[in-house]
Amino acid sequence: MFGAFTNDISDPAKFAEWEPKIKAYREAVAAGVLDEFKAPESLIPGDIDTKGYNATVLTAKFLTADELAIVDTPGYKLVEKLAKGELTAVETFKAFAKAGTLAHQALNCAMELFPEYGLKRAEELDAYYAKTGKTVGPLHGLPISLKEHYNFAGHVTHAAYVSLLDNVTPEHAYNTKILEDAGAVFYIRTSEPQCLMHLCSGNNITGRTRNPYRSTLTTGGSSSGEGAIAAMKGSVFGIGSDIGGSIRCPAAFCGVWGLRPSQKRITLKNVTSCYTEGVQEAVYVVLGPLARCAEDLDLCMKVVLGAKPWEHDALLVPLPWRDVPFPAATSLTVAIAYDDGVVAPHPPILRGLKEAAAKLAAAGVKVVEWKPIRTYENVCAVASMYNADGNSAQRELLAAAGEPLFPLTEVCLSFGCGDAGVSGKEAQRLAGIRDSTRQEFLDAMNAQGIDYLLTPTYNGVAAKPDVLKYWGYTSLYNVLDYPSVIFPTGLYVDPALDPVDTKFVPRSDIEKYEHALYDDPKEFEGAPIALQLIGRRYKDEEVVKASKVVAEIIQA
Amino acid sequence: MFGAFTNDISDPAKFAEWEPKIKAYREAVAAGVLDEFKAPESLIPGDIDTKGYNATVLTAKFLTADELAIVDTPGYKLVEKLAKGELTAVETFKAFAKAGTLAHQALNCAMELFPEYGLKRAEELDAYYAKTGKTVGPLHGLPISLKEHYNFAGHVTHAAYVSLLDNVTPEHAYNTKILEDAGAVFYIRTSEPQCLMHLCSGNNITGRTRNPYRSTLTTGGSSSGEGAIAAMKGSVFGIGSDIGGSIRCPAAFCGVWGLRPSQKRITLKNVTSCYTEGVQEAVYVVLGPLARCAEDLDLCMKVVLGAKPWEHDALLVPLPWRDVPFPAATSLTVAIAYDDGVVAPHPPILRGLKEAAAKLAAAGVKVVEWKPIRTYENVCAVASMYNADGNSAQRELLAAAGEPLFPLTEVCLSFGCGDAGVSGKEAQRLAGIRDSTRQEFLDAMNAQGIDYLLTPTYNGVAAKPDVLKYWGYTSLYNVLDYPSVIFPTGLYVDPALDPVDTKFVPRSDIEKYEHALYDDPKEFEGAPIALQLIGRRYKDEEVVKASKVVAEIIQA
Repeated sequence: MFGAFTNDISDPAKFAEWEPKIKAYREAVAAGVLDEFKAPESLIPGDIDTKGYNATVLTAKFLTADELAIVDTPGYKLVEKLAKGELTAVETFKAFAKAGTLAHQALNCAMELFPEYGLKRAEELDAYYAKTGKTVGPLHGLPISLKEHYNFAGHVTHAAYVSLLDNVTPEHAYNTKILEDAGAVFYIRTSEPQCLMHLCSGNNITGRTRNPYRSTLTTGGSSSGEGAIAAMKGSVFGIGSDIGGSIRCPAAFCGVWGLRPSQKRITLKNVTSCYTEGVQEAVYVVLGPLARCAEDLDLCMKVVLGAKPWEHDALLVPLPWRDVPFPAATSLTVAIAYDDGVVAPHPPILRGLKEAAAKLAAAGVKVVEWKPIRTYENVCAVASMYNADGNSAQRELLAAAGEPLFPLTEVCLSFGCGDAGVSGKEAQRLAGIRDSTRQEFLDAMNAQGIDYLLTPTYNGVAAKPDVLKYWGYTSLYNVLDYPSVIFPTGLYVDPALDPVDTKFVPRSDIEKYEHALYDDPKEFEGAPIALQLIGRRYKDEEVVKASKVVAEIIQA
Repeated sequence: MFGAFTNDISDPAKFAEWEPKIKAYREAVAAGVLDEFKAPESLIPGDIDTKGYNATVLTAKFLTADELAIVDTPGYKLVEKLAKGELTAVETFKAFAKAGTLAHQALNCAMELFPEYGLKRAEELDAYYAKTGKTVGPLHGLPISLKEHYNFAGHVTHAAYVSLLDNVTPEHAYNTKILEDAGAVFYIRTSEPQCLMHLCSGNNITGRTRNPYRSTLTTGGSSSGEGAIAAMKGSVFGIGSDIGGSIRCPAAFCGVWGLRPSQKRITLKNVTSCYTEGVQEAVYVVLGPLARCAEDLDLCMKVVLGAKPWEHDALLVPLPWRDVPFPAATSLTVAIAYDDGVVAPHPPILRGLKEAAAKLAAAGVKVVEWKPIRTYENVCAVASMYNADGNSAQRELLAAAGEPLFPLTEVCLSFGCGDAGVSGKEAQRLAGIRDSTRQEFLDAMNAQGIDYLLTPTYNGVAAKPDVLKYWGYTSLYNVLDYPSVIFPTGLYVDPALDPVDTKFVPRSDIEKYEHALYDDPKEFEGAPIALQLIGRRYKDEEVVKASKVVAEIIQA
């Protein structure tokens, strides 16, 4: 699973030249905390970095009841209210901007905060509505957050690389433009880790992002800020990206919803990443939404694909978003994956799976047990796919600023082949593993009539910062390209219910390492327990609808 | 465009051990020429290999008028007659089996001929119809030919590799099964060249296949036998495969129709090729039909995708075949590519393009000129994609029998990177060229409102055997994954109209080489002039329907 990586990238002298730019960037972020939307500083505990606080309770302490009612209204209902004139874009925006600013104050989730832009946009939308009686589009007036690495017209887009701090992007990422054309209101770009390749949040530009439910834990990553802001109700939904778990991990760790769609549905045009010229196609990155309910995942996809982006992006598959019904629980067969055969889940996740299985069975869902298929082989294969170019693209962008490397950057650059890269022949062998496993999964699901897999997102709940190394529960489904929805079970870590399994015998070094991370249940108390519902390839619509049905049963 | 290749594969001693198997195989093919379907030997000129004969005229000399009427009826009309009981499957089969047996006698297009199987199947279909009054499916009773490398249950499948002459495949290729389940009648598997990678037909198992319109020329390849049998009316349609021109080249050279669909629509499950374990995904092979009219291309696709193969093949995109209307000529904008910027077409092809442009304009089609985009860069890129594994897979299968190599095998193994293969980083660079060019094509077509490109299929008409080296007019659209239809213009080489361009000044070595291949127009007299209509990715349905409209104008 791991190869060799040598850090000949970090260069303190070179990095020192960039520090003034980092300082200026941080000051600009801080300046985005406008008095109008700022929470009293007294609300944020001074020891939030050392003592585990639940920041999600702060929203109701800061927002007025009316504001809270707005941010608590799902997006698909907000658009109706805005279309009927029952809410204005400006009042909607102000409520979300307060929640989002608070989120940043408490959790450090913004990489850019520009509420003046959002307020002006909201005013224009209201003026348009007042004049025409119409909305500009199906997202008219919805505050939507964006992971930082989507190009924003006239702004710096750096993808968490210090060396890109001067990279002013001339136009919006195409998907961002689609959202804006549909009526979205932007005011925040959210945090992501160095390299975009940690299931954590550390970067040299804005530092770390805190977990909303327990501030000493990580949000997960790489859509770190999106997990935080969704939990704190700072946007209706946000757009993340996922090549190994980067939508799903923060959604799970932050107790919100997230969809990793099938590949090549949402456009990647004008998204800044390390692959500036080459194309790494063995495992493909996808964009997708994080939100607070299944219906808003559906809303996002419907709008984004309703723009027929494949007519302008040559790399997309022309699959319109289908309107499918919510399934009857009794029509479903769900296979539970209690263990992927490589790293067994920690006690809280096992408890979540078992409770879910019992409730689903009681509700008439046919519940079977999933037998893992070639997990280790695929987790190793995908690790080498990430680094197939011998880390060349990553190295170039990191070395350009001589950045110090976070521990998890060293880990991700040692994944699979590490610095050695692969040959064309080896790349074909890896793709062969991927494709034959896709077929085995499909055959196994067909043979047993399985509609969905219910699995962990990670072997644990939110980890402590900078330690999480095992991506298998998410990256397996990147390599297979199965769409998946993360949803909260409504359960949280409870030291009384989730003691350390002291009799656990690890099967490998990686399992030993990961098992040891759940060392003291008290340090995880209150962390959300989320699960992952996985559907068949290109059946994104079905998995979104099924996730609501499954989650309602489990949360009941 | 070319790299290094060393032939350390051929081993006369090893090959000698395989020669008895080859002899037995050839005897079995010859034994498939049953007396019942055999043309009088006197019909086939003894000097057919040295003097250029048009074999297509033989069909009407051998078949009865009734039989000819059957093989001249398009498939989409035959299925109606069979469904109404106006024709039996047996009489239909017998007419096609005679035409196909003649095709093989004249052109050596079969790698396997098993009419007993077809006759038995036709009898069963008639019995089913007599008993139930129903057809078994939408292809009930249609004789359909298959390129050899699709696995056939209980038969040897060798993909033109001598070393696979013992490879008995236990079940049908999935696509073959779909066709058979729909009512297809199989009786012939058709020829293909060594390596499946010549735009020609030579192989060590059954030798070469002759061009139906001029027997001293090549059918093209690699679906060599499919081009021949389509022209000779031995099947309603046949299935070929294409990774660089292998459906389109033989369709053009043999004056028939061919569709290269977009990738991942038709299943490749259980197709024998050299990539037995690894997956070469940078440029993807596709299956597709060769036929004698656009409607039968449509029929094939409708049936094959109507089986929803994506429910069982995990690698397909779930795009059902859409029923789109024939477009009005006056609604179309067609861009003519007179030159790809690398190898200019020979005089007959230029004449075909010019006549086409004039007729289309006269019919109210908006005709513009296409400006080539990055042809050379992409033709080089795709050449390295083919050999990205350093020819490892090809070498293994060839060396296992120590086969002598055909000249064009040496050429194809020296394409691009040749034996050197590529690194993972280089593979990503090549994919980047591909994807950015796809985007440039789409942007250019959108900017000019272009619906289709009309281009050569190759810089010439059917070549002499074993000389054709330039694939750019087809392989460019493999790397771009644009669907394309080949259709005959109704024009043929006429030495009086198509003299050698003696003033031509080649721009490169490859252009010099290819230009010189059209050395004596008399040697190409009568060869069909075909063109290629190229549509947007995944718009296969539209390009098929448009091809009929465009071809009718040009053929008028």
